[in-house]
Amino acid sequence: MTRGRPRDPATDTAILTAALDLFIDRGIAGMSMEQVAKRAGVGKPTVYRRWPDKERLIADAIETQVSADIRWPTDGEVATVEARDLVRRNIAAAAATAADPRFRGLVAQIYGSAVTHPLLMQTYWDHYILPRRTTVLAMLRRAQADGAVDADADLDVLIDMLAGAVTYRILQPNPPTARQMRRYLESLYRQVGLLE
Amino acid sequence: MTRGRPRDPATDTAILTAALDLFIDRGIAGMSMEQVAKRAGVGKPTVYRRWPDKERLIADAIETQVSADIRWPTDGEVATVEARDLVRRNIAAAAATAADPRFRGLVAQIYGSAVTHPLLMQTYWDHYILPRRTTVLAMLRRAQADGAVDADADLDVLIDMLAGAVTYRILQPNPPTARQMRRYLESLYRQVGLLE
Repeated sequence: MTRGRPRDPATDTAILTAALDLFIDRGIAGMSMEQVAKRAGVGKPTVYRRWPDKERLIADAIETQVSADIRWPTDGEVATVEARDLVRRNIAAAAATAADPRFRGLVAQIYGSAVTHPLLMQTYWDHYILPRRTTVLAMLRRAQADGAVDADADLDVLIDMLAGAVTYRILQPNPPTARQMRRYLESLYRQVGLLE
Repeated sequence: MTRGRPRDPATDTAILTAALDLFIDRGIAGMSMEQVAKRAGVGKPTVYRRWPDKERLIADAIETQVSADIRWPTDGEVATVEARDLVRRNIAAAAATAADPRFRGLVAQIYGSAVTHPLLMQTYWDHYILPRRTTVLAMLRRAQADGAVDADADLDVLIDMLAGAVTYRILQPNPPTARQMRRYLESLYRQVGLLE
């Protein structure tokens, strides 16, 4: 039922990569759909046919990077595995991602556009962050039930403290290496009871 | 001993205000010393005579805004007043500042430039953030001694959790009102033992 040629996954990848590179280098204000098309080696209509605006394109491009790096626990794992075990399993990968200069560049630009271009944060938040917060919330509820996390902790604030500390730390001068980030995460998780 | 006319505080204020407005609207990448001069109604040499580069000018401009809003406890207060009392005294002002759209815009642009223009973060960090971290560290050490904060807490990580949560929260979609921010701060401080 769709008109025109079928979508070519290689074209999608080229467009998403071009959008991500431009976003990390210049931010949403400094880039255009035209530049994305040029860098991806396609026509502007090809980009617009797939993504109606910069916000949706960039949100998908960010997700391509983030989902390739971080494996989130499934609902089944959250239900059956202790939160501390899930944290231990994923801590090395999380540290490597957080210490990656490309990830730092990404976080900086996402934050940087939050007030001047709120639609990007809104789009990324609704599609990608909220579902993950739901997963982390389930982990923390389980950790509370197990007595690892304080029973009266405000879990929404706790999630902000965890995510906020990591993103704040990596944007400070002298960003951590993966090894330093791992020690940092251990200290952070220990602080809230998610590690012994 | 200085050459030329003496510095006029009104000129400094005009330049700092122009720099802050431009920075919040466009970020460091989108603004020039020339635009600052024009907006302030002075010549470019007048700006450069006072500030050798954008980074130093913006760092001072940010500070003008932040220091007007937040009163930090003195060393004497930290030494003699319980951390929980200091928190209680300052929580309303801190909530009002954090909920201010101008403060949100400022935080977004500071984070946004952290990777592409690291010299701004470095300058602001060295001159303004580090001294305040020292104050907060002294408060937290005292709170530890009083038994309010966990004796084995990693205080550097704890500071990141506090500052990180607030800045992360205000950049999320649906930013809080001052009243919501106050409840948020209460929950945050309670979490680490800085409020009952």
